[in-house]
Amino acid sequence: MAETTLSSTGPAIILVRPQLSENIGTAARAMLNNGLTDLRLVAPKPDWLSERAIAAASGADRVVLEAKVFDTTEAAVADLQRVWATTARNRFMVKPVDTPKTAATAMRALAAEGTRFGVLFGPERTGLHNDDVALADTVVTVPLNPDYSSLNLAQCVLLVSYEWYQAADPELPERHMTKGAQPPASKEKLLEFFGHLERELDDCGFLRHPDKRPVMVRNIRNMFQRANLTNQEVQTLHGIVHELVTYRHKKADTKN
Amino acid sequence: MAETTLSSTGPAIILVRPQLSENIGTAARAMLNNGLTDLRLVAPKPDWLSERAIAAASGADRVVLEAKVFDTTEAAVADLQRVWATTARNRFMVKPVDTPKTAATAMRALAAEGTRFGVLFGPERTGLHNDDVALADTVVTVPLNPDYSSLNLAQCVLLVSYEWYQAADPELPERHMTKGAQPPASKEKLLEFFGHLERELDDCGFLRHPDKRPVMVRNIRNMFQRANLTNQEVQTLHGIVHELVTYRHKKADTKN
Repeated sequence: MAETTLSSTGPAIILVRPQLSENIGTAARAMLNNGLTDLRLVAPKPDWLSERAIAAASGADRVVLEAKVFDTTEAAVADLQRVWATTARNRFMVKPVDTPKTAATAMRALAAEGTRFGVLFGPERTGLHNDDVALADTVVTVPLNPDYSSLNLAQCVLLVSYEWYQAADPELPERHMTKGAQPPASKEKLLEFFGHLERELDDCGFLRHPDKRPVMVRNIRNMFQRANLTNQEVQTLHGIVHELVTYRHKKADTKN
Repeated sequence: MAETTLSSTGPAIILVRPQLSENIGTAARAMLNNGLTDLRLVAPKPDWLSERAIAAASGADRVVLEAKVFDTTEAAVADLQRVWATTARNRFMVKPVDTPKTAATAMRALAAEGTRFGVLFGPERTGLHNDDVALADTVVTVPLNPDYSSLNLAQCVLLVSYEWYQAADPELPERHMTKGAQPPASKEKLLEFFGHLERELDDCGFLRHPDKRPVMVRNIRNMFQRANLTNQEVQTLHGIVHELVTYRHKKADTKN
């Protein structure tokens, strides 16, 4: 794995009292998807490093195997300078609240100045204890369907990690075209095909009404124009038209 | 659950040949987190509606219980007018590629004009078959750590659903397509045309090599798919193929 794609400056992901060891694996996978590797566990179950955890990590097992284990949340955040706490519900504490997106922007600024930071995630059923939340500078809450906002632990880790990764380059890639083997056909090639098709359509009578012909031709050209065809595709279309016609003539010949 | 928070206009989430029933449950949970309820399954395992699926849905079981099951991907997308296919790797098909974020912006614009759309997700190990990808107008790929970009199925559903939900309040997107008089054709209409064209191409011998047939059919479908055809344009294409063939038969008749 290329070191360059991993971010040693990203957030530590801190799972506080995780209950299900496969969630640890799935969280590790979500982290590595987004270039994060600093996984910390606070008071996990004694058997947390299970086969289920490794299986769920599905290739990100390095992140699981290198996880640091702490007895308390205080110990887990000791070396960090800024901490976020994920919560689904209002804890009635006076703290700034981020979305994963606004948190990611803030994290990128911190990373740029060499600050160390992390994000706390609570146990599956109960979420973070208020004492854990109190250790954080900022709360992060994912804006979700207010009637069903409880996220799976690993899903929550994914969204926070994803927004961190996406914030790497504030200019997200624009929609682009999959690169096929070939570049788009030149207009010349396209016009040759239009000529071929229209000759055949005149021949078979499809364009037989002179008053409708211009608008029909324009509509047909528009359809093919919009498809952004490659040279090879234009050749395929020539072939389709050609074969239909050749077959027609052959058929006519054999009937003679 | 308040009706107001659910989006009947959001994307259909279409899981193609899902292998693990708990992923169906986790995907349903991720959907409902983001206000989505239209879950469709293509050829799931016979025992897909398992206790594991319901347990994994964790309160979003309504979405699982109301999932629609289809035999084929074609049937699952028949009523939709725009389809995205999620892929992790380049399929070398000439199609536009979205990120979940750019897809979400496009989806919001489609929803605003009443267009029906959905997103295809492939089986856990293999991803979508190329024939499934060929049914889509646009590919969606999550920008992730290039050294470890394989997402769990439910995680992928989460990211697409999340970006849809986050895009609830977009600035007006720049749409690339001029609005014609007609909405885009449904996939059903498009598939009918593909059927018609391919029957004729079988008949005339254009598709005579069985080993090349699948890739040729896929390439031809991709071209027409990309053109974002209206119903009227699909009718025009039926007409073109029909007239070429009718003329062929007429010509053959008169030679008798």
